[in-house]
Amino acid sequence: MIFLPQALTDAWLLEDIQGGDLTTQALGIGGQPGHITFFHRQGGCVSGIAAARQMLTSLGVSVTASVNDGERVVAGQTLLCASGSVAALHQGWKAVQNVLEWSCGVSGYLARMLDLLRQHHPDGHIACTRKMIPGTKLLATQAVQAAGGLIHRAGCSETILLFANHRRFLANGDDWPAMVSQLRCHAPERKIVVEADTPDEALAALRAAPDCIQLDKFTPEQAANIARLAPTLAPACTLALTGGITLATLPDYLDCGITLFVTSAPYYAPPADIKVRLEPDSPR
Amino acid sequence: MIFLPQALTDAWLLEDIQGGDLTTQALGIGGQPGHITFFHRQGGCVSGIAAARQMLTSLGVSVTASVNDGERVVAGQTLLCASGSVAALHQGWKAVQNVLEWSCGVSGYLARMLDLLRQHHPDGHIACTRKMIPGTKLLATQAVQAAGGLIHRAGCSETILLFANHRRFLANGDDWPAMVSQLRCHAPERKIVVEADTPDEALAALRAAPDCIQLDKFTPEQAANIARLAPTLAPACTLALTGGITLATLPDYLDCGITLFVTSAPYYAPPADIKVRLEPDSPR
Amino acid sequence: MIFLPQALTDAWLLEDIQGGDLTTQALGIGGQPGHITFFHRQGGCVSGIAAARQMLTSLGVSVTASVNDGERVVAGQTLLCASGSVAALHQGWKAVQNVLEWSCGVSGYLARMLDLLRQHHPDGHIACTRKMIPGTKLLATQAVQAAGGLIHRAGCSETILLFANHRRFLANGDDWPAMVSQLRCHAPERKIVVEADTPDEALAALRAAPDCIQLDKFTPEQAANIARLAPTLAPACTLALTGGITLATLPDYLDCGITLFVTSAPYYAPPADIKVRLEPDSPR
Amino acid sequence: MIFLPQALTDAWLLEDIQGGDLTTQALGIGGQPGHITFFHRQGGCVSGIAAARQMLTSLGVSVTASVNDGERVVAGQTLLCASGSVAALHQGWKAVQNVLEWSCGVSGYLARMLDLLRQHHPDGHIACTRKMIPGTKLLATQAVQAAGGLIHRAGCSETILLFANHRRFLANGDDWPAMVSQLRCHAPERKIVVEADTPDEALAALRAAPDCIQLDKFTPEQAANIARLAPTLAPACTLALTGGITLATLPDYLDCGITLFVTSAPYYAPPADIKVRLEPDSPR
Amino acid sequence: MIFLPQALTDAWLLEDIQGGDLTTQALGIGGQPGHITFFHRQGGCVSGIAAARQMLTSLGVSVTASVNDGERVVAGQTLLCASGSVAALHQGWKAVQNVLEWSCGVSGYLARMLDLLRQHHPDGHIACTRKMIPGTKLLATQAVQAAGGLIHRAGCSETILLFANHRRFLANGDDWPAMVSQLRCHAPERKIVVEADTPDEALAALRAAPDCIQLDKFTPEQAANIARLAPTLAPACTLALTGGITLATLPDYLDCGITLFVTSAPYYAPPADIKVRLEPDSPR
Amino acid sequence: MIFLPQALTDAWLLEDIQGGDLTTQALGIGGQPGHITFFHRQGGCVSGIAAARQMLTSLGVSVTASVNDGERVVAGQTLLCASGSVAALHQGWKAVQNVLEWSCGVSGYLARMLDLLRQHHPDGHIACTRKMIPGTKLLATQAVQAAGGLIHRAGCSETILLFANHRRFLANGDDWPAMVSQLRCHAPERKIVVEADTPDEALAALRAAPDCIQLDKFTPEQAANIARLAPTLAPACTLALTGGITLATLPDYLDCGITLFVTSAPYYAPPADIKVRLEPDSPR
Repeated sequence: MIFLPQALTDAWLLEDIQGGDLTTQALGIGGQPGHITFFHRQGGCVSGIAAARQMLTSLGVSVTASVNDGERVVAGQTLLCASGSVAALHQGWKAVQNVLEWSCGVSGYLARMLDLLRQHHPDGHIACTRKMIPGTKLLATQAVQAAGGLIHRAGCSETILLFANHRRFLANGDDWPAMVSQLRCHAPERKIVVEADTPDEALAALRAAPDCIQLDKFTPEQAANIARLAPTLAPACTLALTGGITLATLPDYLDCGITLFVTSAPYYAPPADIKVRLEPDSPR
Repeated sequence: MIFLPQALTDAWLLEDIQGGDLTTQALGIGGQPGHITFFHRQGGCVSGIAAARQMLTSLGVSVTASVNDGERVVAGQTLLCASGSVAALHQGWKAVQNVLEWSCGVSGYLARMLDLLRQHHPDGHIACTRKMIPGTKLLATQAVQAAGGLIHRAGCSETILLFANHRRFLANGDDWPAMVSQLRCHAPERKIVVEADTPDEALAALRAAPDCIQLDKFTPEQAANIARLAPTLAPACTLALTGGITLATLPDYLDCGITLFVTSAPYYAPPADIKVRLEPDSPR
Repeated sequence: MIFLPQALTDAWLLEDIQGGDLTTQALGIGGQPGHITFFHRQGGCVSGIAAARQMLTSLGVSVTASVNDGERVVAGQTLLCASGSVAALHQGWKAVQNVLEWSCGVSGYLARMLDLLRQHHPDGHIACTRKMIPGTKLLATQAVQAAGGLIHRAGCSETILLFANHRRFLANGDDWPAMVSQLRCHAPERKIVVEADTPDEALAALRAAPDCIQLDKFTPEQAANIARLAPTLAPACTLALTGGITLATLPDYLDCGITLFVTSAPYYAPPADIKVRLEPDSPR
Repeated sequence: MIFLPQALTDAWLLEDIQGGDLTTQALGIGGQPGHITFFHRQGGCVSGIAAARQMLTSLGVSVTASVNDGERVVAGQTLLCASGSVAALHQGWKAVQNVLEWSCGVSGYLARMLDLLRQHHPDGHIACTRKMIPGTKLLATQAVQAAGGLIHRAGCSETILLFANHRRFLANGDDWPAMVSQLRCHAPERKIVVEADTPDEALAALRAAPDCIQLDKFTPEQAANIARLAPTLAPACTLALTGGITLATLPDYLDCGITLFVTSAPYYAPPADIKVRLEPDSPR
Repeated sequence: MIFLPQALTDAWLLEDIQGGDLTTQALGIGGQPGHITFFHRQGGCVSGIAAARQMLTSLGVSVTASVNDGERVVAGQTLLCASGSVAALHQGWKAVQNVLEWSCGVSGYLARMLDLLRQHHPDGHIACTRKMIPGTKLLATQAVQAAGGLIHRAGCSETILLFANHRRFLANGDDWPAMVSQLRCHAPERKIVVEADTPDEALAALRAAPDCIQLDKFTPEQAANIARLAPTLAPACTLALTGGITLATLPDYLDCGITLFVTSAPYYAPPADIKVRLEPDSPR
Repeated sequence: MIFLPQALTDAWLLEDIQGGDLTTQALGIGGQPGHITFFHRQGGCVSGIAAARQMLTSLGVSVTASVNDGERVVAGQTLLCASGSVAALHQGWKAVQNVLEWSCGVSGYLARMLDLLRQHHPDGHIACTRKMIPGTKLLATQAVQAAGGLIHRAGCSETILLFANHRRFLANGDDWPAMVSQLRCHAPERKIVVEADTPDEALAALRAAPDCIQLDKFTPEQAANIARLAPTLAPACTLALTGGITLATLPDYLDCGITLFVTSAPYYAPPADIKVRLEPDSPR
């Protein structure tokens, strides 16, 4: 459960309805009672439902039934049903649909990655990066958590993460033990994570025994090689794979010995196809 | 040029840097002078540059060179270069990169669609829908406009757009002339646009002569058929194709006689690959 | 129905009550139960009621009865009644009264204009401009729509509207057909509206057949003249009168043949006189 | 000088320009250099100038000349001149014009009231109430202060102000000395102001010697009568007239012996007529 | 009762819970029902309760019992009890605790000061300054009012308060009667308050008879001396003591003849010790 | 360097100056040029300087000299000097002073704690908790980092931190190895921190070898005892002391063998005494 401030769900509505739905007004149907139903065309792991409820409630519409964030639905299943005036329902339609399509797109994609991973590694994890689409942090967080994923790092103050872009400012930017030691000393409560861009860097990093090494854009073979050496060189060090990890490439890495994957692919997943139907309460 | 309020670009920064960059702090390099360079790995039509400038400026960093929104860059070309303290540069890195990657992803994709279209139809247009990722409206708008695209409809009060979800509330939901006439009467300053979900609906709609008909998920053949009849039935009516229009499907529609395409595909384009390099002002 | 985000109605309250009502506190009466009633002294078409309900609810006060936005009330009629603690009621008093006075001022004025117009032209329309008092856009929109008016143009991206301030930047700023043609070509989904400042401009514009011509500050005779020529020159072109259209000047234009009036006068209407009475639940 | 937060002036811009100026875009003139000039058609005491500067600056436009808030201009005088790209200038046009028209309307009206008053009473004052148009508090405050007016009371915690709506909750709501005494005791740092709705109430109030009595909707004769008695009954008590004080009614009260007037009329003054002209830097 | 806008209480939550409570998630206990209880370890005058209710309600948690702002509780007494899902309860824990600890710290401290004062002077008052911790104005205001204190001055436009920092800009900065007279003339509706930094200044100020004199950092003897002279020199002038007034120093001033104390000490009081216990609804 | 969004520093100003400085206005001195100087009366490690610069700049005031966040100043030293109009300077005075007093209070207190600690343990650390005063998170963060302190945990999603309030919901809430193992499994990228409330709990926790154990309210002897056993039981586990750690109690713990202290005491430090002097540019 991710808390969504009122101002955020209000802002999502206002992106679409600053002047009401003109078509409803011109047709003179705004005062009729009706209901709206959101269906998931493809099915999959859903999210954005709590957000949708909050938005519809703000419009004075009553949500009468829904599934919960994180549940799996089948193709065509109803996600949410709500009733109220046609004026309110038409104003909620597209803004809520956008939230559901994007959220379910993310959670559905990530859930499919996790399904694949956990067939091989029941304790494997997929962590999503901070390479988020600007302005979507809370929405992304709820979608990732609904699907059972992890947030890799919510910002640059959460863990220590040493990049080449840091090392370039150091006199001893190749002295991994010195760097890890300095980081441990100055950040005793943080995970010390380093990124390695090549197998050689990974080996050097392993010898410095940080808490975690991210292997960026490694081939499966390169990854497997490092994974084989790690238990000896740095038994307490976690290995993670990052860079180019998607639903399509994940299978190639399932046997490399690393079970923690870091990715931003779900944020850019195709949106789910959410069908929306508005109907009068009593059919004409 | 799309105006971005300070609070928006500040919010994009705060998504990533509420506590500063801990790694910079632990390494003690924050006070050094340095510069940051953003490169476009693939090349294409760029956007988000003005946003990036505004963000970097808010961090006290000086932007020393950049291309402009809407320009085309080649693979590997520099988008933006800025100099300042390492503490500030590292705080700007990822948040700015996220803005550029998403923006350039959208503008690059849309520009490729437009290139394709205009080879056949120099006056053709691609309009992007309000099916935006929640919270990205202004960012999406600048990317679409940078690429030369149109915003189809910024919200549900901008034009009259009659959907089946409206018609279901009308006693005469099949009487297109009556509906169009009522809409014209009650909204004399707005375009009267209707959506047709089938060729039969499109024909019925054409006979009512609205200002525009959106053909939703029509095959190229269905579209061509309607396009052939339109000049006779409703000479002043604009036809638009919507539903499933992407870079991949667009070629199939280039000969159907319709030159206005409505799509949300660019919003979900893969992000551009923006490489970021931080370096000390004087090499070590 | 116009959606009002919580932050907006909260801001209206905070303009008045950042420190509570000191007089209530000094009298020690804040904990007593009481009720508040808002009356419309003059009567007329009302608006701001939904906003008032939302504000009172945020203060923990129960609204027990109210009329609806858009209804007509007679002089002295009750708009809204609510009950709660004296501390809360006194904090709601003035901020809610301000919303009602301004809103009902706008809707009342506009409704009187529409009453006048529709006696002559049942299908006539009055559209309110974007010349709004800064910070009042949503409040103004709900008042205009409650009264049955139209929003002329919610911002400068909603329609194409060619002003002399644009034409001055064109080499061919007098070539109306070329300008209209270029605008149509580059904005196929938008109404092409042009403003004419003189009868000569209006004639030139008519020959270019845009979707709409706004005649700015025309006398009734000038307007009638153009209206007589328009059906021949540009049968599909809508004419609108703008500039100086008020409740006082409208009668002069009722016979000129144009039935669409564009005005900002309602925004500057005198506020309605809303009387507010607070009373203890049990009389002393 | 009233501080205007960036978010406020940004919000005023966004009310008008969320999608840029489409007409400029369709004409392809956005990149040209140009300048914009704001003229005051009628002349009078001006305000909103600092706000306008801040808005134009946020758009990247350079303000090259302006008068200052509070100055008097003659009919046709330039208020502000700025130069920049046509795209930016057209986005600033209407939003800035709205700020100037409303602000100068308020300050101009109030200045005319003050001119009238001070011909008779050089030390007379006009104080503007908190009956402000919702959402305009800071804008109103700068306009009032620019014209030399006072803010009567910025909210209900600034002074003690006893209304009948308070007295109705008291067992001794007619015992003015007891009420004033209680208020003085519980609010030793605040002005004790009471409102009298009738001459009898005013007399009773005077005998209780509060710091100030507001006479609400008194005739000039009633006001003169109280003013004659006050120096004897309560020599330190300030008298103020409120209710229906406008530029039109003020002359009737100039001889009644009271020189402090409380009014909300300036907030509802007609907007000033600000002419805006955009031109290319080099004439075509 | 101080109105707290939704955005403020939402912001307090977001300071702690942008990503949910990870520990709850990792333990898989988020969906269990449970309850949370907040106890006041030391006891005293409480505040922040209404704020806490609003925050818990926003999280979807039901508040089942609570005391009211301004009440006195004994050591160990329950302030608030609420029930809901463990995920929601754990997200509310610390943010709500922070609000209660700080609020109760302020109100408890101030109430102890008032208890002490009113044993000697039943009509004495303690007013809290605008030297507030940045960002805490509304929270501080509710705590001060709950304890029975006054807000001295909510900002620099509420009263006239003449400091040496003003006088230094005047040609006649030592001519107190002239200064007071000018201030009275230009601010007829405001209290005229002056600050005296020395006994000599206080005497000079008394002779000018402002509405109030603040004696800044006076010793008890200095204060008593001024208090003795005031009734003769300026019988209607209120005296207040400011600068260094705390729970520790207050006793020294109880006999000096001044009963109005101005202080910011409560804002910096130690936080109350609020114990928080979360438990399953059915014990394991 | 902590990024402070414009809206935050604007909000700090608005807490004090919504109507300008009335005293300045009534004295008619607002237009004079002058300067303002902020002095640190006691001296110590400073912070809030960057915030103060940003606030003064927003008021149109020029900062002419300042020290930097994190520097040490001696008693009486100037922190900041700025020049501008008296109207602007008086509006900046108190709001900026409040930021500096609170910030310097926090950083000064924390720096004194660190000085004490590092005389004994050059690599010791003090980490400040998320028990922040509501609404002060960014301000607190910059003060803590300026003084050289750490942020313990910016929110409940940053690390895993197991409290008794979590354990109470588990069937096996006493089985520390099982709990730590589950947490490690489900949060592979996070530090696993547990809190022990008694020595027995600490021992049980040590045997489970989490990444860190917080000893809450342990006596120095209890702490020393655990510290002696830890290297054997869990060599990689970090120990931290929390609960009641202040400048006064820290000396008692300097020999216990633990060098990481977690505290919220600095947030509640007495504010620094910042003297502010405004003067005309040319003396009178």
